[in-house]
Amino acid sequence: MRFEPTDKAVEVRAGSLIGEAAHEAGIDLNMPCGGQGRCGRCAVIIEDGTVRRRSSLRLSDEDIAKGYALACQTVIEGDAVVMVPPQEKIERRLTTDKTAAEVTVPFDYDPLRDQPLRAVYLEIEPPSLADQTDDWSRLQRALRREHNIDGVETDLPMLRRLGSILREADWRVTAVLEMDAYHRPDGPPRLVDVVPGNRTERLYGVAIDIGTTSNVVYLVDLLSGRVEVQRVDYNAQIARGEDVISRIIYAGKNDGLGELQSLVLKTLSKLLERVAKRARIETTDIYKATVSGNSTMLHLFLAVPPESIRLTPYITTVNQSPAVMAGELGLDINPNATVDCLPGVASYVGADITAGVVSSGMADTEKLTLFMDIGTNGETVLGTRDWLIACACSAGPAFEGAGVEHGMRATLGAIEEVWIHSDTFEPTYRVIGEREPKGICGSGLLSLLAELFVTGILDKSGDLQLDLDTPRIREGEHGDEYVVVWADETDTGGLASKHDIVITEVDIDNLLRAKAAIYAGYTVLAESVGVDPALVEQVLIGGAFGQYINIEKAIQIGLLPDMPWEQFHFLGNTSVRGSYMALLSRNVRQQISEAAGRMTYLELSADNTFYDQFTSALFLPHTDIAQFPSVEEILTNGRTETTEREKVCAA
Amino acid sequence: MRFEPTDKAVEVRAGSLIGEAAHEAGIDLNMPCGGQGRCGRCAVIIEDGTVRRRSSLRLSDEDIAKGYALACQTVIEGDAVVMVPPQEKIERRLTTDKTAAEVTVPFDYDPLRDQPLRAVYLEIEPPSLADQTDDWSRLQRALRREHNIDGVETDLPMLRRLGSILREADWRVTAVLEMDAYHRPDGPPRLVDVVPGNRTERLYGVAIDIGTTSNVVYLVDLLSGRVEVQRVDYNAQIARGEDVISRIIYAGKNDGLGELQSLVLKTLSKLLERVAKRARIETTDIYKATVSGNSTMLHLFLAVPPESIRLTPYITTVNQSPAVMAGELGLDINPNATVDCLPGVASYVGADITAGVVSSGMADTEKLTLFMDIGTNGETVLGTRDWLIACACSAGPAFEGAGVEHGMRATLGAIEEVWIHSDTFEPTYRVIGEREPKGICGSGLLSLLAELFVTGILDKSGDLQLDLDTPRIREGEHGDEYVVVWADETDTGGLASKHDIVITEVDIDNLLRAKAAIYAGYTVLAESVGVDPALVEQVLIGGAFGQYINIEKAIQIGLLPDMPWEQFHFLGNTSVRGSYMALLSRNVRQQISEAAGRMTYLELSADNTFYDQFTSALFLPHTDIAQFPSVEEILTNGRTETTEREKVCAA
Repeated sequence: MRFEPTDKAVEVRAGSLIGEAAHEAGIDLNMPCGGQGRCGRCAVIIEDGTVRRRSSLRLSDEDIAKGYALACQTVIEGDAVVMVPPQEKIERRLTTDKTAAEVTVPFDYDPLRDQPLRAVYLEIEPPSLADQTDDWSRLQRALRREHNIDGVETDLPMLRRLGSILREADWRVTAVLEMDAYHRPDGPPRLVDVVPGNRTERLYGVAIDIGTTSNVVYLVDLLSGRVEVQRVDYNAQIARGEDVISRIIYAGKNDGLGELQSLVLKTLSKLLERVAKRARIETTDIYKATVSGNSTMLHLFLAVPPESIRLTPYITTVNQSPAVMAGELGLDINPNATVDCLPGVASYVGADITAGVVSSGMADTEKLTLFMDIGTNGETVLGTRDWLIACACSAGPAFEGAGVEHGMRATLGAIEEVWIHSDTFEPTYRVIGEREPKGICGSGLLSLLAELFVTGILDKSGDLQLDLDTPRIREGEHGDEYVVVWADETDTGGLASKHDIVITEVDIDNLLRAKAAIYAGYTVLAESVGVDPALVEQVLIGGAFGQYINIEKAIQIGLLPDMPWEQFHFLGNTSVRGSYMALLSRNVRQQISEAAGRMTYLELSADNTFYDQFTSALFLPHTDIAQFPSVEEILTNGRTETTEREKVCAA
Repeated sequence: MRFEPTDKAVEVRAGSLIGEAAHEAGIDLNMPCGGQGRCGRCAVIIEDGTVRRRSSLRLSDEDIAKGYALACQTVIEGDAVVMVPPQEKIERRLTTDKTAAEVTVPFDYDPLRDQPLRAVYLEIEPPSLADQTDDWSRLQRALRREHNIDGVETDLPMLRRLGSILREADWRVTAVLEMDAYHRPDGPPRLVDVVPGNRTERLYGVAIDIGTTSNVVYLVDLLSGRVEVQRVDYNAQIARGEDVISRIIYAGKNDGLGELQSLVLKTLSKLLERVAKRARIETTDIYKATVSGNSTMLHLFLAVPPESIRLTPYITTVNQSPAVMAGELGLDINPNATVDCLPGVASYVGADITAGVVSSGMADTEKLTLFMDIGTNGETVLGTRDWLIACACSAGPAFEGAGVEHGMRATLGAIEEVWIHSDTFEPTYRVIGEREPKGICGSGLLSLLAELFVTGILDKSGDLQLDLDTPRIREGEHGDEYVVVWADETDTGGLASKHDIVITEVDIDNLLRAKAAIYAGYTVLAESVGVDPALVEQVLIGGAFGQYINIEKAIQIGLLPDMPWEQFHFLGNTSVRGSYMALLSRNVRQQISEAAGRMTYLELSADNTFYDQFTSALFLPHTDIAQFPSVEEILTNGRTETTEREKVCAA
């Protein structure tokens, strides 16, 4: 096998996939679907040789005629020369946290009270013939005498350095301690590091959120509680699968698990170096990390095989993982620092949700609260300080732009909001990066669906009204469709020629299923505890996608319940905030454990009422229009076009 | 640099030592003195090129004329060709434990009571949609419900394997637990392993003793408490230094520490494979190791730099090291098994002594007891169950055959016992391996010294009586000497020609100093607590050398106190026995910690009375002959030659 244009050659056995050969040759092909042949992003051109295409689902006949083949689905049968097209740079709008610019210290913070890290200065009496106490006992004694800290434990890597540090520092050192190692409330203090001289004026930790798409790092000054620097970057695992399912599949291949772990560690390492550099410290000055993320992300981070998360009955290996040393894991902070992964509840209700429930205040409020993270898994929690019930609905990736003909992620060129004229049925739209559109992202699809519905292009069953007087509604290859952008206004060049950006019947069906799943999810939650959903006092929306939702339109399609807009709160990344608060406070950390412990997980696929609720919600906005009085009002009296027009102008 | 006869060549910088170049070329030169130029064992022949001999202490002019140079002391100044003579195989009599052949279970053993390892069989209810508990919590729940074992902890390597083991085993597994991980009496149970099916009928641990010279491994069936197999082998570190001081020096060179750790791990690995193979198990079936050894050996085993042990004021980095995972250390048992290094007291009173004090029963007796390990450091403990005081006297390596003109270790060809005729002054001797003698080992030297004294060849000051009528007493190169073996009866071929085996004035002086240091040691111990040494009720002698001591002769030279022979007990390897008992019982383990904690360490170099006692003991048997009535009796009335003759015949 030879790869062009880099001219790298590898020997592989006949029967290997091109993707495997490329991996061996060190060529990084994008495989956002995890190598399942679904995304078409790993297409290469066969210049010479014999190959067999197992699947070419995403390739047109024209593409195949040109020699295109999917690297993940094409078997090498003999010598071959393959041209690798320039790999598309994964270029997206980062999910910048709206609240991130200025993260405020979340409570009356006292670094000595509830925060487990401590740096203490010691002037140790040097050993002599009259006092031959060993170095480690001598240090323990000084901690006891000078700071009343008793029963400190340590480990081998620390002991290996201890003797020379103490002597080189002339017995004047700063000891960094973790006061409740291993998360046991009564756990012994643990010696994390010993550094020469007095270094008690600085003490850092990091709060990390490992999202499927983006990773966030907060560098926290533990003496003030303030976030010194924060950085966000894409999870490099994206190249091996866009969603958790693709990554779980990838993890099951050869060393896929190790590779995915390396990729996320690489991303984190880059972020950690950046925050450290900005704060003018070394990454080894970071003495603790708390980590939040969904269950799959944490399994991959820890290199615990996630396979069973994907397969019925959907089981994680571990929801509350033990504390791990950074060095053991390969996280680029002080190797002897503890890495604390926050606890999750189930395969699809992870630490990101428990962290969110606590950091949003839901776990401590008397108000009946609905917490939602809208995405592929649509995690939803209902409850108060006294009880919590959670579910995850397999909404599918439609709101993330996948499984939709011209859907895409919220990257440059994505249509993110749409308005349709009630009379002409002509659309106006806003594109990320203000350029020619390539496709439609989740918020754009949500917006489009609502507009199609309220303008009467779609009926309540989601059927397109072909009899309306506009060329935009037509029969296409995959059934009826609505043309959002004509080909000549697009930037849809790629494998083949330009084409119209449309939304098809199939797409609409996928979107309806997604919104129905989410709506049915919290309806079932409420029913299961005998609570009237109308009594919900506040809806807290976390997660990346939540920030871009237009509440009005989300209610119009029946995704969100019909209640006054002021009851909705978009909280941004509640997961990293939970991670940050847990870093600052053992008490918060304990609350997250408790929240995870008392959160009842309702498995919807095992719930009989879910299917009924789902079916009822497959309409726009719902079979029972009485649940959506504000939508009924619009449908009856028409909407105020001005409001929408104003928005267009503002944009 | 080129090495013959292997024709290996390496590039090194001018100024490098031949030893360094050889190391780089992968040539294993013996350096028992640790590369200090003291032993002469790394001698090579310079065939061509320019070198500079920094020291050639152990080479004669004749040797140098032949081209010999010490690899550890010879600087390369240009291209050179060096011939490496065949490296002497380190061939010694193994210190087989007299009691080892049949180690009896030391107490009424109950595998469930006091032994921390447990293997329990679990039939776990598989997960379902109705019960989505994560694997780890499910296992914990089964342990709690079926075996009443609560709060079990685990770690990442275990979690990484857990999911697949449980599923492949169809949820029927054996869990191996350590009930008090991390040595905390109230510590939580720790999951060590999960294996498919019911494997509760076997459970193994190992007790290890890391001696400076030999390493011992007992494979212990933890269900019966019996030692299944035991093996002993030389510590491969010997090639890098015979004694602890040489090894500490070697550890300070480049990666010397890492190399020494690898060497002892290699030795242990070999032993562990042998015991496992014999018992028809895998080394991964071994779920715990307790390790005893002197402080330097344990530092090297853990790769904790031992440097400060050697330098005044003689400080260890750690006397009570934390439990370590075998995988972290590289010990060839189950990687998730705990390796428990027993606690020591000081640089020269290590875990081997605390283990000995407990396993010998000294820590639990009302009798005033003297515990001795005679060797370079002459560790001595005095006390009862109520108090313990210990010291180490730098006896020097004379009793180990080093620092003596024709001294050698107790290997093949060593004279191990000597008898001298009172009238003719002709010696008879016994040689290890019954062959031509090469030199004299420790017990041979002790025996020789006693015989020289009681036959009047030496006076009480240790001076040779030149006026006696025998050619064996003569003036030699290094002062007066006694010829033990004439050249033609020897096997002393080597660098140069054969020579007589003699004991010189200097040797005798070294031996007197060694025995005086040990005698002074326990005298000072007794004085320091105000106890009359004559009140000692029993003398327990542990360690390798102890086994070969002839009590009568040891008393004659004033090494051991003059008391009835039945009060002396040779216990063999009390260190490995302590390790074995600690493996079986948390209670014994606790006793060893307590013994270490309450043992007062007396630093002789800081003690004013030690020098006086030492000086008084530099005579044969002692300045104050009244302390040795039985010797006075022999000197006055002559000895019973028959007894000795009988022994010769018996041999």
